Amino acid sequence: MALITLLTDFGTRDYYVAAVKGTLLRLAPGAVVVDLNHEVPPGAIATGAFLLGAAAPTFPSGTMHLAVVDPGVGSDRRILAVATPTALFVGPDNGLLAPALDHPQARVYGVDRPDLYLPSPGHTFHGRDRFAPVTAALARGEDPAALGARIEDPVRLAVSPPERHDRELRGRVIHLDHYGNLITDIPSAWVDRPLERAEVGHETGQTALRRVSHYGAMAPGEPTVVAGSLGTEELSLPGESLAAKWRITIGVPVRMHLR
Amino acid sequence: MALITLLTDFGTRDYYVAAVKGTLLRLAPGAVVVDLNHEVPPGAIATGAFLLGAAAPTFPSGTMHLAVVDPGVGSDRRILAVATPTALFVGPDNGLLAPALDHPQARVYGVDRPDLYLPSPGHTFHGRDRFAPVTAALARGEDPAALGARIEDPVRLAVSPPERHDRELRGRVIHLDHYGNLITDIPSAWVDRPLERAEVGHETGQTALRRVSHYGAMAPGEPTVVAGSLGTEELSLPGESLAAKWRITIGVPVRMHLR
Amino acid sequence: MALITLLTDFGTRDYYVAAVKGTLLRLAPGAVVVDLNHEVPPGAIATGAFLLGAAAPTFPSGTMHLAVVDPGVGSDRRILAVATPTALFVGPDNGLLAPALDHPQARVYGVDRPDLYLPSPGHTFHGRDRFAPVTAALARGEDPAALGARIEDPVRLAVSPPERHDRELRGRVIHLDHYGNLITDIPSAWVDRPLERAEVGHETGQTALRRVSHYGAMAPGEPTVVAGSLGTEELSLPGESLAAKWRITIGVPVRMHLR
Repeated sequence: MALITLLTDFGTRDYYVAAVKGTLLRLAPGAVVVDLNHEVPPGAIATGAFLLGAAAPTFPSGTMHLAVVDPGVGSDRRILAVATPTALFVGPDNGLLAPALDHPQARVYGVDRPDLYLPSPGHTFHGRDRFAPVTAALARGEDPAALGARIEDPVRLAVSPPERHDRELRGRVIHLDHYGNLITDIPSAWVDRPLERAEVGHETGQTALRRVSHYGAMAPGEPTVVAGSLGTEELSLPGESLAAKWRITIGVPVRMHLR
Repeated sequence: MALITLLTDFGTRDYYVAAVKGTLLRLAPGAVVVDLNHEVPPGAIATGAFLLGAAAPTFPSGTMHLAVVDPGVGSDRRILAVATPTALFVGPDNGLLAPALDHPQARVYGVDRPDLYLPSPGHTFHGRDRFAPVTAALARGEDPAALGARIEDPVRLAVSPPERHDRELRGRVIHLDHYGNLITDIPSAWVDRPLERAEVGHETGQTALRRVSHYGAMAPGEPTVVAGSLGTEELSLPGESLAAKWRITIGVPVRMHLR
Repeated sequence: MALITLLTDFGTRDYYVAAVKGTLLRLAPGAVVVDLNHEVPPGAIATGAFLLGAAAPTFPSGTMHLAVVDPGVGSDRRILAVATPTALFVGPDNGLLAPALDHPQARVYGVDRPDLYLPSPGHTFHGRDRFAPVTAALARGEDPAALGARIEDPVRLAVSPPERHDRELRGRVIHLDHYGNLITDIPSAWVDRPLERAEVGHETGQTALRRVSHYGAMAPGEPTVVAGSLGTEELSLPGESLAAKWRITIGVPVRMHLR
């Protein structure tokens, strides 16, 4: 039984998510479709890639992940199918599939199967008219290699990797979660000494001085560092949104000074 | 295996959606329940009908669609079951099932099966206590004709169809989507000449001058017309909400002038 | 086929819900996972318990309910598995599982199965790393008694039960729903005489004078009492949010005076 996850920036007030699911279920009878996320901000490719990379590894081997954050819909941007040893990914060629593309054994195909695409009244909804039928074909057992030629030049996200300098770790806020926590890209494994302070933002007014093992060990009103659930450092404020309090946006720099 | 979709105006912060699903799964073991939409504004029957009509055709033949936008819950409004050649629909008799009622081969039944209804502490939640058990009965194989007498007078939505006048097309905004696009009821097939301009609203200050094939061909800051994903014209502003910028509400008139 | 419901305060914009589902599906292949609710306000244990108690009884016998509203994640708060004659519940020991704990035949186990827990980079996401694998074990057929020792002292919510005094019924607002209705804890069965008035709040300015059988019998602009869908009294304002109009918060007192 095929398992398909669905990540989009479609939101939840339209018929878009349901139309993709309906198409998947019509063209791949018996498939199980699970929502990965539909609240990616419109066109926010990097956020979509982050969420996909965080959630996809939890799913069973063989899962198909359909991801549609696709501001270039209708243009000549390519459709990709990416096979890793444990999963299949389908999405636009705009960096969204970064978590799959980054896999050293990824095989990347440029999908070229007009025979699969649905007749469509326009060019605004490839999620329903192209991505869904391509994913359904995989769910029916189609070999990804039969979807198109292998390509070596998929579009990749520009990323600035975190840096480790003596006792200073430099990274960025890569996600703001529902609770207002600041997820950074600084690996927790790099924090091999006690924290002196963490600074967030271009100026140094926003500072956390303590690092604890879990949220409950934080003191009310005190921004605190914690090892997050993806192996990177996180900043949090108990019972409040630190993102709102500090007015943080994704991408702001984070520096951690160790003793 | 029965496939049931669920459209409501219940929102997502209550137990209402889960209680309907639980009841469906309890009374139709093994059924697969898929969310169609739960963000219909409270009591917005026409929006519910729009979403149902847009999504239902994508589902496999034999799908059951349960729709509950039901401001008249507890009154003597009827419960309908509607059979089309490819699907079954259950919902209140208030126009919500318009996409099914409009089908030339629709058979419409006024449900009268108190034996199916659940005992209930009040009259405020027919979704759980009446609609779900009726739908579950269909999922277990009950013939829709066994649910009640055939009726010929279901409540219908008042709709003003779009009009085609020489080089002027007249319609309305029928949906505002998550991205702030304006979905109109003007068929794209009517646009058989180049666009001169599109006017939205009761006054003519709000105007789009260009029509393109897909979102990516739009210029930043420029409201533009595009053929939408349901076969009707759509107005869009790249990367922004045109609905918010122009303060559009559903129902405002749209005129398209062709050259 | 195991049926698992999922209630959290994770919201819908993160990878958290998907990661729990992915883990469940990976560790309990073929399980069906149904959303109960993910919009519990962060850390709102009583709201989570209310929603769980309202929805769980609708599900088939044998359903597993995983609930994660867990501000104490990472601390030494216990993980509970609770077996009732008809369902299994897994969640933190903070009162969230009240609807199960209140069952006279509930058996409560303090989960102590580090062998099941997943290796984790931190202590912030037990939903994925502990609760999901424990629930998956139950879904695979593990006896709840094998999860840990039986305990008699689970944490319980402080609740003030409603009171019945001659012709005055006293209770509280226990939920504000999507429509702005005020759900109280006053049993509708206690309303055995006509209503004189209902007062909401610490002062008596907020008053409803009528009680009707269903929403449609209410008059526009008039706050009205109705027997709600959980067997308790509810206050409602047709087509508007009474909660917003009266600025009600959960917990405010409600008095109903009967004639």
